[in-house]
Amino acid sequence: MSKKIGLLMGSFNDFDKVKPAIDQLKQLGIPFEAHNYSAHRTPEQACDFAREARKNGFGAIICAAGVAAHLAGVVASQTTLPVIAIPLTGRLDGLDALLSMVQMPPGMPVGTMAINGAKNAALFAAQILAVEDADLAARLAALRAKNVEDILAQDAKLQEAIKG
Amino acid sequence: MSKKIGLLMGSFNDFDKVKPAIDQLKQLGIPFEAHNYSAHRTPEQACDFAREARKNGFGAIICAAGVAAHLAGVVASQTTLPVIAIPLTGRLDGLDALLSMVQMPPGMPVGTMAINGAKNAALFAAQILAVEDADLAARLAALRAKNVEDILAQDAKLQEAIKG
Amino acid sequence: MSKKIGLLMGSFNDFDKVKPAIDQLKQLGIPFEAHNYSAHRTPEQACDFAREARKNGFGAIICAAGVAAHLAGVVASQTTLPVIAIPLTGRLDGLDALLSMVQMPPGMPVGTMAINGAKNAALFAAQILAVEDADLAARLAALRAKNVEDILAQDAKLQEAIKG
Amino acid sequence: MSKKIGLLMGSFNDFDKVKPAIDQLKQLGIPFEAHNYSAHRTPEQACDFAREARKNGFGAIICAAGVAAHLAGVVASQTTLPVIAIPLTGRLDGLDALLSMVQMPPGMPVGTMAINGAKNAALFAAQILAVEDADLAARLAALRAKNVEDILAQDAKLQEAIKG
Amino acid sequence: MSKKIGLLMGSFNDFDKVKPAIDQLKQLGIPFEAHNYSAHRTPEQACDFAREARKNGFGAIICAAGVAAHLAGVVASQTTLPVIAIPLTGRLDGLDALLSMVQMPPGMPVGTMAINGAKNAALFAAQILAVEDADLAARLAALRAKNVEDILAQDAKLQEAIKG
Amino acid sequence: MSKKIGLLMGSFNDFDKVKPAIDQLKQLGIPFEAHNYSAHRTPEQACDFAREARKNGFGAIICAAGVAAHLAGVVASQTTLPVIAIPLTGRLDGLDALLSMVQMPPGMPVGTMAINGAKNAALFAAQILAVEDADLAARLAALRAKNVEDILAQDAKLQEAIKG
Amino acid sequence: MSKKIGLLMGSFNDFDKVKPAIDQLKQLGIPFEAHNYSAHRTPEQACDFAREARKNGFGAIICAAGVAAHLAGVVASQTTLPVIAIPLTGRLDGLDALLSMVQMPPGMPVGTMAINGAKNAALFAAQILAVEDADLAARLAALRAKNVEDILAQDAKLQEAIKG
Amino acid sequence: MSKKIGLLMGSFNDFDKVKPAIDQLKQLGIPFEAHNYSAHRTPEQACDFAREARKNGFGAIICAAGVAAHLAGVVASQTTLPVIAIPLTGRLDGLDALLSMVQMPPGMPVGTMAINGAKNAALFAAQILAVEDADLAARLAALRAKNVEDILAQDAKLQEAIKG
Repeated sequence: MSKKIGLLMGSFNDFDKVKPAIDQLKQLGIPFEAHNYSAHRTPEQACDFAREARKNGFGAIICAAGVAAHLAGVVASQTTLPVIAIPLTGRLDGLDALLSMVQMPPGMPVGTMAINGAKNAALFAAQILAVEDADLAARLAALRAKNVEDILAQDAKLQEAIKG
Repeated sequence: MSKKIGLLMGSFNDFDKVKPAIDQLKQLGIPFEAHNYSAHRTPEQACDFAREARKNGFGAIICAAGVAAHLAGVVASQTTLPVIAIPLTGRLDGLDALLSMVQMPPGMPVGTMAINGAKNAALFAAQILAVEDADLAARLAALRAKNVEDILAQDAKLQEAIKG
Repeated sequence: MSKKIGLLMGSFNDFDKVKPAIDQLKQLGIPFEAHNYSAHRTPEQACDFAREARKNGFGAIICAAGVAAHLAGVVASQTTLPVIAIPLTGRLDGLDALLSMVQMPPGMPVGTMAINGAKNAALFAAQILAVEDADLAARLAALRAKNVEDILAQDAKLQEAIKG
Repeated sequence: MSKKIGLLMGSFNDFDKVKPAIDQLKQLGIPFEAHNYSAHRTPEQACDFAREARKNGFGAIICAAGVAAHLAGVVASQTTLPVIAIPLTGRLDGLDALLSMVQMPPGMPVGTMAINGAKNAALFAAQILAVEDADLAARLAALRAKNVEDILAQDAKLQEAIKG
Repeated sequence: MSKKIGLLMGSFNDFDKVKPAIDQLKQLGIPFEAHNYSAHRTPEQACDFAREARKNGFGAIICAAGVAAHLAGVVASQTTLPVIAIPLTGRLDGLDALLSMVQMPPGMPVGTMAINGAKNAALFAAQILAVEDADLAARLAALRAKNVEDILAQDAKLQEAIKG
Repeated sequence: MSKKIGLLMGSFNDFDKVKPAIDQLKQLGIPFEAHNYSAHRTPEQACDFAREARKNGFGAIICAAGVAAHLAGVVASQTTLPVIAIPLTGRLDGLDALLSMVQMPPGMPVGTMAINGAKNAALFAAQILAVEDADLAARLAALRAKNVEDILAQDAKLQEAIKG
Repeated sequence: MSKKIGLLMGSFNDFDKVKPAIDQLKQLGIPFEAHNYSAHRTPEQACDFAREARKNGFGAIICAAGVAAHLAGVVASQTTLPVIAIPLTGRLDGLDALLSMVQMPPGMPVGTMAINGAKNAALFAAQILAVEDADLAARLAALRAKNVEDILAQDAKLQEAIKG
Repeated sequence: MSKKIGLLMGSFNDFDKVKPAIDQLKQLGIPFEAHNYSAHRTPEQACDFAREARKNGFGAIICAAGVAAHLAGVVASQTTLPVIAIPLTGRLDGLDALLSMVQMPPGMPVGTMAINGAKNAALFAAQILAVEDADLAARLAALRAKNVEDILAQDAKLQEAIKG
């Protein structure tokens, strides 16, 4: 049976920034579970989720947080599943969250996405599952092909815009 | 049969910074292939490697590069395998390479490690393979347990150091 | 016959930021071709354009992109024509795009303009063509002379504003 | 009886950077306990220490860590004692550790010192204990008076140096 | 009798950014005194307040200021009470104020909060008083417990949002 | 007759950082003239050189400077020839020079290279001359081909290094 | 007879940011002359003004500019009068203009104000004239005294606001 | 009689970084007084010096400090003499000191030099005195003329170096 993706966000206020990840997972038909767990305010829930994630059928955990964004690191400390980080804007245009997530010390990796890169977090999680899931890999390839079409359609619109 | 890890570096001058990834992969007994392919100077080789990686039995591709570090992005554009980026120091203490790698646009994710985070790149690649490889997952868990022992041994040394 | 300028943008969403380049090229009467080609999503189209550019009569290629802006580097890897980069705002006030473009490694130069510096990209392309085109050089000199008049006219307005 | 100060460092490699805190606590005669506990590699030990700190007679906890420095945040999540953070250099001249520590979200404060500010962390911990300890307050005031003397002595040396 | 908290701000224009500290102190029932004293424009008042603070019954002083934010350092130079700094936005998204406050030289500590971290400054001041005030410690613990409830209530809302 | 390249540096102390440009121009057989002219200390000489450059047979001017690097802007204000900027390290790892050079206002473009990117400045100047010089274009293409060989030779060495 | 202050701005678009300097000079009754002269587009006018400034009765020159802000440096290269720089916002929140102005090389000083610090530029110019003008010094001291009153009046308002 | 220059440094450890200011003042024959006074550790001495500076015959005060460099601001708050700031390296390559000094709030200007710009601080102080001192102005002009000679002599050496 297919693995699920876990998706934790540190604050429900960030829902709109995280939603593209949820939409992308739904579009790809990937089962997921999402929680509003904070590294600092509900560390127990966040750690329990992470500690049990592998045996609960998860294949990767996405963590979205802002400012001193410790969520991904805290989750990574409790599991050897791949942890994917989404640094969120909030202050300093997200640079604080980015450095708090990406600069993990040796032994405790976190795969960090762009600032507010929720959609990519979902795609990266899908790519991880697709390593052993040829069907999902095909869906990801189809998405890429669709992207090419979209960009070439935009190129046609650009030709119109230049004339104007 | 177990998937392999691909490891590309943009310049052989960076070998010492990338070596911890090679050492970690060897220690975990994970098969890998490494190449000195540049995104700009040998784009054909880099793209060919990426395009054929899935069917050649790779499960993830690690890309290490410095300054305007385009290697991971160029590789990601040719495959839906997970691409793991190691931003290398060289100028601006590696901040240029970090931003060039982590800030990928929507649709084209790259999982970025810390600046010079070669060891973590190998561990993250291993974690990806371990999603479906219980034996590798166990080896990763053992590594973590060993880490705890090391730190507690250091704590004992700290107690000595404080007395001095 | 006069050389053309190629103008590539990574996303049609950036059209408004790139338009001053188009307007400037038109004003100078320089022939150009523009395309919406992404380094990551349509690498083949971007590379083909770059590879064939010299023999298709182009004299320089302008590349506009944001965030992890790899477009100029990818294009530069396929041609020895001068490549001119416009880093676009999007995140971190364009600093990520600037560093991704300007910090090219030895052997693969890209001439980078200011963040959102589309107008200057067109002028710089014109200056390149004007090295061997005395007539265009004269038009560029006239534009400069016009600038002086504009600024001195503003200086007159400033004298009024100070009195107020 | 006087409260103790807890002092946690994320890696024994950082001992030299943390030592000024230990020296300062010793000089002031403040009882302390120090441990090499990592937020990521030994979260259980770090959390247990924090959770039990108040009832074990601690008055404040100093946390020293580098890069994605989560130690102070993780400790703060387990106690309402004042947590004092020392961001350590390691990469980006310590800016990553500084932002990871100082930018704590509402509800979970950490009092952050300068980069590598170990001595000040000890002094700040002492100032906290001195709020209700007049004797310690007097020792801190004496230290300040001694500082004035030292600086004025340096001023005398400066007068010599200028003549030379 | 319980210690008071001093709260200084450098400009009344910053009142809205500082108000969460006042609200939090009121909610916890902690007596406080607030003043609009500038390090540069009314240094005498700021220094007098700081110099007399301990004997006037204060247990800590919060200082909020923006740009070249010297207020906390100036206050710290006049007292051995704990000084808590709130760097305020104004320019460079608050990075100038943050560095002006947190980078205090050895001998003169200031405990710095996040940019615009007024609420945390009040909580940190409360934590300092709570070191010797078990009742206040209990109120802080209750606040934390309330936080957990809030976050779990948000998690329930998240489950609804995902279905939508 | 072939155009020359002008090469100005603001301080002879920077000669070692600029030398790769000289070496590259010599290797390509491109005639050049180099001067130690400062934007601030010898503005007359710098401006005269720029003003007369086109009629003196120059096709582009390379300007290398550090800190508040105004040389390229000052030169650009006196000529419509392409001006190529090399920001040099000196303080802030060259970020000050980079921003001083690349952020030119509309109407006055400067094509900026990487920090300390002297070799690329020479190559970019060559690419400009090669727009109308097929022979030089062929030499640049040969250099690229040589680069591919070098990298593949390094790849062979990498295979040896991995075995070790 | 009293010296005048020169005030140059690089673009009339920046008038609103520069106006506080004009207002402050008027309020202090200091004679001044303002011009819209660009370092790059009207270098001749800017240099002529600077070169003749001392003999035309000026005591200091204020230069306001944004992005690659070369105006103050260009002016300083033509005069030994004190040059005061106002870095203006425009991109990167004014950090590019700040570094372009403040990082002047040895031998060519520029006294730099805060980003958008127009009012302070006028006050600093006044302080320079007041070194030998006791009457102006008295007016500056009166302004400071007025500031104290304003801040203490705000403190009274703060007491009201806290009650609310 | 000629005005004196005051020169304050926050720490005698910074003497070597400040010495170029002393050497330049001596070379120009400008009387000066230097002190090792800290804004935080000897605020009384620093403030007293500033408050009495005008009547003690000073024409400007140079302040050199690192990290959270409050010295110039503290001095400026006590005098309407021009205050000149030298931000010193120490951490973050001097960016913290620069922002702490240059970003002064409206009403309290400080003229900031480059990071470690001690020589320029002395020259700027001399330029201030030279506004009303024609003889000093002539010496400054002679220094500039000497600079031109030095640079042109270096240009001659450059011509030799290119041949080599």
